[in-house]
Amino acid sequence: MISKLKPSENVVIQGWVDSVRAQKAIIFLIIRDRSGKVQVTIKRENTPEIADAVEGLLKDSTVRIEGKVVDAPNVKLGGIEVIPTKLEVTSSALVSPIDDKTGLDLAMDYRWLDLRDKVHYFEFQTRVLKAMRDWFVENEFIEIMTPKLTGNSTEGGAEVFSLKYYNQTAYLTQSPQLFKQMAIAAGFEKVFEIGANYRAEKSYTSRHSTEFFALDVEMGFVKDEHDVMAVEESMLRYIFEKVEMPLASAPFPKISLLESYELLEKERGYIVPKAAKGDLDPEAERLLCEIAKEKWGHDFIFITNFPSSARAFYIQRLDETKPRLTRGFDLLYRGVEITSGGQREHNPERLVNNLAEKGIAEENMKFYIDFFRYGCPPHGGFALGIARLVAKMLDLPSVKDTTFLFRGPDRLSP
Amino acid sequence: MISKLKPSENVVIQGWVDSVRAQKAIIFLIIRDRSGKVQVTIKRENTPEIADAVEGLLKDSTVRIEGKVVDAPNVKLGGIEVIPTKLEVTSSALVSPIDDKTGLDLAMDYRWLDLRDKVHYFEFQTRVLKAMRDWFVENEFIEIMTPKLTGNSTEGGAEVFSLKYYNQTAYLTQSPQLFKQMAIAAGFEKVFEIGANYRAEKSYTSRHSTEFFALDVEMGFVKDEHDVMAVEESMLRYIFEKVEMPLASAPFPKISLLESYELLEKERGYIVPKAAKGDLDPEAERLLCEIAKEKWGHDFIFITNFPSSARAFYIQRLDETKPRLTRGFDLLYRGVEITSGGQREHNPERLVNNLAEKGIAEENMKFYIDFFRYGCPPHGGFALGIARLVAKMLDLPSVKDTTFLFRGPDRLSP
Repeated sequence: MISKLKPSENVVIQGWVDSVRAQKAIIFLIIRDRSGKVQVTIKRENTPEIADAVEGLLKDSTVRIEGKVVDAPNVKLGGIEVIPTKLEVTSSALVSPIDDKTGLDLAMDYRWLDLRDKVHYFEFQTRVLKAMRDWFVENEFIEIMTPKLTGNSTEGGAEVFSLKYYNQTAYLTQSPQLFKQMAIAAGFEKVFEIGANYRAEKSYTSRHSTEFFALDVEMGFVKDEHDVMAVEESMLRYIFEKVEMPLASAPFPKISLLESYELLEKERGYIVPKAAKGDLDPEAERLLCEIAKEKWGHDFIFITNFPSSARAFYIQRLDETKPRLTRGFDLLYRGVEITSGGQREHNPERLVNNLAEKGIAEENMKFYIDFFRYGCPPHGGFALGIARLVAKMLDLPSVKDTTFLFRGPDRLSP
Repeated sequence: MISKLKPSENVVIQGWVDSVRAQKAIIFLIIRDRSGKVQVTIKRENTPEIADAVEGLLKDSTVRIEGKVVDAPNVKLGGIEVIPTKLEVTSSALVSPIDDKTGLDLAMDYRWLDLRDKVHYFEFQTRVLKAMRDWFVENEFIEIMTPKLTGNSTEGGAEVFSLKYYNQTAYLTQSPQLFKQMAIAAGFEKVFEIGANYRAEKSYTSRHSTEFFALDVEMGFVKDEHDVMAVEESMLRYIFEKVEMPLASAPFPKISLLESYELLEKERGYIVPKAAKGDLDPEAERLLCEIAKEKWGHDFIFITNFPSSARAFYIQRLDETKPRLTRGFDLLYRGVEITSGGQREHNPERLVNNLAEKGIAEENMKFYIDFFRYGCPPHGGFALGIARLVAKMLDLPSVKDTTFLFRGPDRLSP
């Protein structure tokens, strides 16, 4: 690694050409790798064949250099320079077709070049994912890898991608929802997964992709949805600590959807439009996060007790006296929803009723209802979109920034 | 957790009914969770409503119990018992449709019941995956999550699943091969991913699934394929240490494919059939592992220098004097191939030649060749099938055992 170079004979360094500055007698080559940069000083007189090889070399070509590292107090890059004895051009770059002024679409066509100054997003994401999984493993969750191909089309609502699968039709799963609940029925007790999810929607926003990676969590033997929120809060606190980001020490604020509607009206004069159908619209999410920051000094806020009309059939109702409210919740962070979660209905008869209410054919969900007929503890869980969380942690405008290769209705390559 | 119960007033335990043994005055209930079992002793006289609730309760129903834990030296399960003051049946089980004598296909229809005595496979897998990722993060690899949906159908050879994607055709990726190499061109230097892979083959073996999860690794600035093998060996040693499984301390044996053919003939009189086309057939893999165990006391063996006819176009040729041999390798473990890897060809002109030789239209791979035109270091990597590795570590016969929900040509549910 370049950042660890110290004066010594016989080093081998490999890296990218950051710049070539040719003078009459000397060529200065700046070489970089992920760790840093170093100056390579080539005297034409001493090593003419090396001088010839690097002259005209374009930025982002790669080289392998043998030589020695010497003290050079005047050199800004660490006070050292490399005197090469051998240099091999391992890859010659053409002129990059993109630069700082390139539009989003062309930048995405050349995503691998666009990514070259964004590698640190993914170094950061690696730390987030590491802390996330560490928390779950330390807390005795089992990691599962559920299928993304399924014979069952519906989980409730959103559109799915379908494909020919031998003599059958397969669908890409919208989430591991049904399978992570299956793990609970199988006695796994506590499970997590970080994997791909598919939504065949025509969404063109800064929050949506047709393929996205999410954390999915499910826990058995919960008392209610508040157990689930407590787990999510603990996990997020652990991540923020590990990536050294400050986070208010007070518990995450938690208000019901009804309270959030009142707050929006009182604090901002905002009335959630009817079209939101008992959910929050993006503007309401943005304003609620502003309010949470002002009132409670918090970037996070839980919204609880969504109505059953705005939640999937598998979310448990609050209780028999309030059948229109559910044990479903959202978690908002810096203006956007990053999580949906809740306690699940684990009673097969009540599930059948919920299906009927939603107008979903019981026949199509029989395989799922069966998970709960041979014993299954009360359980709940949540899902958290990785690209959304990381984009907001890094204060970036879109999931396109934090997705390695974005997939949208018009974007399927590279 | 049941295993941590100690004598005390006021406990709440939740778990599965393992058995109900009703006597005249007393009912003994054995309750289990993932951690262990405990006896609940119900005196009809003291708590008749609890006795009524549990009588007739079937195995694998779930309960929530409030009560106290008392010393009971005669009780085999930890010398304690629970005296309940309140009991709630949270889920009533029907009789399980499967048992020890159930055939494989019915067991897979009821996989969540079949899994109930196999949860430890996935606890073990969780430890393997944790150690695996820890090793990569500690060694400064960046985690990537590459798309499983792509607009480009071919990576060379095997059959792919395709689907309608808005106005285009999308394909499910056979591996992250092309994208992990893109990360190298983007300057990520060292990357890993554990994700889903798709093969639309009609394979009915103990080693194949249409959907499987694999570790994919790619490293820039390698000297040659031996750097890649060294990384894989170090990583595997770390995993074996973390899961406390013994592993021979000598380096993994490493022989060329040609040497392996000679060894097979000499040691077993086995001649690899022509149909294997310069690769190893399953019988050769099995015998080579037997021989490696006998000769070198090792469960692992690297086979190197596969011919270009048996390797994808992107594997680098050994050198110009031996253009028919490649820098591709396999790793065998306990009788099966668990890894393919190698150094990649990063020179765009040589890649174009390789494509022509394989009869792949350059047009279809243009997006990929472009990755190497704007600078890309020498690099190599490997892929390792998780279910294969874990099955062999646990000495289980098939990837069907270690896959949470197996997908094959005839299996798409639950």
